[in-house]
Amino acid sequence: MFVVDNRIAQDSRLIKNLPLCQLRLQNDARYPWLVLLPKVANVTEVHELSLDQQRQLMQESSMVSKALKQATACTKINVANLGNVVSQLHWHVVARFNDDATWPGPIWGVGDAIPYPQEQQPQWLDALLTKLQ
Amino acid sequence: MFVVDNRIAQDSRLIKNLPLCQLRLQNDARYPWLVLLPKVANVTEVHELSLDQQRQLMQESSMVSKALKQATACTKINVANLGNVVSQLHWHVVARFNDDATWPGPIWGVGDAIPYPQEQQPQWLDALLTKLQ
Repeated sequence: MFVVDNRIAQDSRLIKNLPLCQLRLQNDARYPWLVLLPKVANVTEVHELSLDQQRQLMQESSMVSKALKQATACTKINVANLGNVVSQLHWHVVARFNDDATWPGPIWGVGDAIPYPQEQQPQWLDALLTKLQ
Repeated sequence: MFVVDNRIAQDSRLIKNLPLCQLRLQNDARYPWLVLLPKVANVTEVHELSLDQQRQLMQESSMVSKALKQATACTKINVANLGNVVSQLHWHVVARFNDDATWPGPIWGVGDAIPYPQEQQPQWLDALLTKLQ
């Protein structure tokens, strides 16, 4: 049975259900940062997905990346499947700017998250969700 | 016209031509580290590829990840498309071990590369190439 890992549940929230993945917003205002979480049980590596699921993951990642780039006018999209801390398969999709906190380095494991103020969500999220409709 | 970025050419070498991508070995003995470089001109983001190219990239990434995991018996495969330093679209495929230099953090931008001794290639590469035949 598909269950969201505790750490992922704690650090992000569901913003949209896509056919394969939960699209989640990472609670870190330093970066426009999304997580794609395939709704598949017991998977840690992409090659453990079926071929159809792999294609769907690529399609959703590409669609979300394009929408995030348009919604934020960022410099570069970073997409990564790491899973060294949380093994449940998940893809980070992050909008990077050439003046952000850790540019041009990666964002993971550097500094501390800055949570969004309660009941406040980032402006770019509305634009993103409109593009994903 | 497709041209390999100078930095990529300097830091890695071609080990196999796949239908879409060059498969390259990063010259850093700290990690079993491969780079998939789509042979497509002027592309920086995955969503700029055609749908067929995106599917092919996913297929090659998945095949290479599976073979690398088998060839190295690593803890986790890390796959990332960053491109903050070199904008030409390329995917890192890296075998991670829970006792490697930067585990569980990401590998990019941490420490200095340790080049392979000249005319020596890592043992796992033969196993990888056999699996990719």
